Amino acid sequence: MIYANKPLEPGFSLNDLPGSGRIDLLARCVSSALWLSHGVRRDTSIHLFVEVNKQRVMISFSGLKIKRVSPDERNIASWISKALDCFVEGKEQVQEGIKIQRIGLPRFLEQFRGRDIIILKEGGKDVRESELKDPAFILGDHLDLPEGVLKELERFHPKEVSLGPESLLASHAIVLAHNEMDRKD
Amino acid sequence: MIYANKPLEPGFSLNDLPGSGRIDLLARCVSSALWLSHGVRRDTSIHLFVEVNKQRVMISFSGLKIKRVSPDERNIASWISKALDCFVEGKEQVQEGIKIQRIGLPRFLEQFRGRDIIILKEGGKDVRESELKDPAFILGDHLDLPEGVLKELERFHPKEVSLGPESLLASHAIVLAHNEMDRKD
Repeated sequence: MIYANKPLEPGFSLNDLPGSGRIDLLARCVSSALWLSHGVRRDTSIHLFVEVNKQRVMISFSGLKIKRVSPDERNIASWISKALDCFVEGKEQVQEGIKIQRIGLPRFLEQFRGRDIIILKEGGKDVRESELKDPAFILGDHLDLPEGVLKELERFHPKEVSLGPESLLASHAIVLAHNEMDRKD
Repeated sequence: MIYANKPLEPGFSLNDLPGSGRIDLLARCVSSALWLSHGVRRDTSIHLFVEVNKQRVMISFSGLKIKRVSPDERNIASWISKALDCFVEGKEQVQEGIKIQRIGLPRFLEQFRGRDIIILKEGGKDVRESELKDPAFILGDHLDLPEGVLKELERFHPKEVSLGPESLLASHAIVLAHNEMDRKD
């Protein structure tokens, strides 16, 4: 799950994704989470927790179900745009494998009970030395997770894990997390 | 260095990067090679070996020198487009840190003498168990390196290295290679 700090506007310009709430960054995260060289990771979903019209909503992409989505930023951004339109119209289902719903973080996270909730954090335990049970990763965007979110996460007993010595783009962190899981499988 | 299999056309559409010779993929590779969370990897350069007007040219981005480039696909693609325009006009320098030159692969690779030339390949030696001396990585795009290129590389005694059990997008492979180098530093 990616926590987006900047609000999104329905009808944003596909020609200026960085200026539209860093949608370029969100799109890259979806691409990193779901794409392999010649296909999609069917066992992975990614959830974008964004603000729109002063409400927090979750845009979910399911690797198992998505169709007609390609890994470039503009294409993924066009689906994010469609999701925002759906939200304004009161619809949850955007297309097969993509939905948008108004939901609070604690209620959303309830579905991950029994799984390891992982916060990627510099100074956390090295992922290569961490035992991770069916992990669900939570990342901030270009800014860290805000205090309020960290507070809400506390009761899920998240583990803090680091991926290496450098501070990375969120989309790159996802690639490294996947590689580690691929190697542990 | 990324070997691009599809020819590029000067004046391609920034609104259809996948349809313009997979420029989305090339842009993602530049982004993966050069960006950290809050800055650019000043110790890294990336070279795109592309075909334009039936000629092979190298578009180089120097992390040490680039300015006014951002990590989203469209922005990087706009610099690739400017580079192609420069080539048509007979200019090598696109802007500080970005240049385009007509050059054959063997002559280009001469500058890497003394460094380890690495071909990323499934079935190669695991990167985590490889000693790499000041490595220069060579990748194909969504297709593998063609036979002719592999032949030209032979005299540089490349090492074949693998990054993990899955077949990955080139841009994701770059992220993993960087992480390994970051950890070995």
